Amino acid sequence: MSVTTNDRPRPTAAMLVIGDEILSGRTRDANMYHLAGQLTGVGIDLREVRVVSDDAPAIIAAVQALSATYDSVFTSGGIGPTHDDITADCIAAAFNDHIDVRDDARALLQAHYDRNGQELNDARLRMARIPDSATLIENPVSIAPGFSVQNVYVMAGVPSVFQAMVATVLPTLTGGAPLLSQTLRIDRGEGDIAGPLGELAHDFVDLSIGSYPFQKDGKYGANIVIRGQDALRIDLAMDQLKLAFPT
Amino acid sequence: MSVTTNDRPRPTAAMLVIGDEILSGRTRDANMYHLAGQLTGVGIDLREVRVVSDDAPAIIAAVQALSATYDSVFTSGGIGPTHDDITADCIAAAFNDHIDVRDDARALLQAHYDRNGQELNDARLRMARIPDSATLIENPVSIAPGFSVQNVYVMAGVPSVFQAMVATVLPTLTGGAPLLSQTLRIDRGEGDIAGPLGELAHDFVDLSIGSYPFQKDGKYGANIVIRGQDALRIDLAMDQLKLAFPT
Repeated sequence: MSVTTNDRPRPTAAMLVIGDEILSGRTRDANMYHLAGQLTGVGIDLREVRVVSDDAPAIIAAVQALSATYDSVFTSGGIGPTHDDITADCIAAAFNDHIDVRDDARALLQAHYDRNGQELNDARLRMARIPDSATLIENPVSIAPGFSVQNVYVMAGVPSVFQAMVATVLPTLTGGAPLLSQTLRIDRGEGDIAGPLGELAHDFVDLSIGSYPFQKDGKYGANIVIRGQDALRIDLAMDQLKLAFPT
Repeated sequence: MSVTTNDRPRPTAAMLVIGDEILSGRTRDANMYHLAGQLTGVGIDLREVRVVSDDAPAIIAAVQALSATYDSVFTSGGIGPTHDDITADCIAAAFNDHIDVRDDARALLQAHYDRNGQELNDARLRMARIPDSATLIENPVSIAPGFSVQNVYVMAGVPSVFQAMVATVLPTLTGGAPLLSQTLRIDRGEGDIAGPLGELAHDFVDLSIGSYPFQKDGKYGANIVIRGQDALRIDLAMDQLKLAFPT
């Protein structure tokens, strides 16, 4: 059977998480999990994630490599006002772009701090450092904007701000057909499942068939997830899987 | 003041997480957070993490790049019995090593399944596929071993097994001086903190000073973390920070 529905090609994406706090084990990353779910929902394939520390050469190299390989790149972290926030300058360097305090970003910050009776000091003004060619990304939570340069979307690390920026950006991107999936839990060890599962994968090369083992109360089992863009094909594969492993 | 204590150089490490389930947002990674904390505890610097899908060229390229750049590399995922478990073969390919079912690994599995009255079928036997040059890593949880080739430690993705393998491997590695840290919570926006904090970072170039902003009940604040290998220097910097931001 050929795939007849919904086979618009899926754009690819990568994520770059910037920050020592993830690598030191101090903070458990939340943004990767959020972005992965959001991208899957709109039919964009997250293919790779990298986590690097607050180190300019590492950030620049990762941005260049990911930007050249994938349709879009999403970064999180390093765009605040403190000395260790170096992401904006690294993005400019990665694209040979000029960077300085930009009037549009400064105006946003000035209005925000005026409203709150706070001073737009030198540190806060760093958050208006935006590469010349960038388009701003709105930040409804704390105003200081993210930005995009070419296919790279630069967003904050604080989860509430990151999520708000993702919500702003996603509708502007063209996704492919959403990935559909069905899951079957099989209460047997993967070693018993693997043979028939391999045959199923061979019969349905248009689908992605994954096995995710678990252990619960000393028993082994696995969740088998069948993913694809054609609901009928997934139904068919799921029927065949249930035949092989009757409950 | 010079750094006088404990300045043994810290070895570097990277992690490679292998698996579609993380990138699709289906599973929230737990192994990165665990490994990051464990490595920090023994004085090894986790510098980079990559997450790639169950795709041979992507896995091979990442293994080669990370292995060449860092002192050690830890992988998680893709060493089970199912068709999508391709990590062992990719590691062999990355190092131009030969791979097949190895007698020592087969013997471990045979004894285990004999004990449990289960069959060592073809699928389970895949877990005995180990590169020729590899050293096995014990798996006290579910027996199927991990292995190391050169500076790459290949471990399971199931968190309980991953953690047991990390516990086996870590004592065999030579760490640097453990990283010490102190944290001060400051209930002010980062924009107010950033100026004095930048000066502190300038005065204490031997320490790493990070600012991790948070928002709670509509108020902004930040945890300032000072890290280093010299407890006295950290105390000194912390005193100076408290002077700048009295509570």
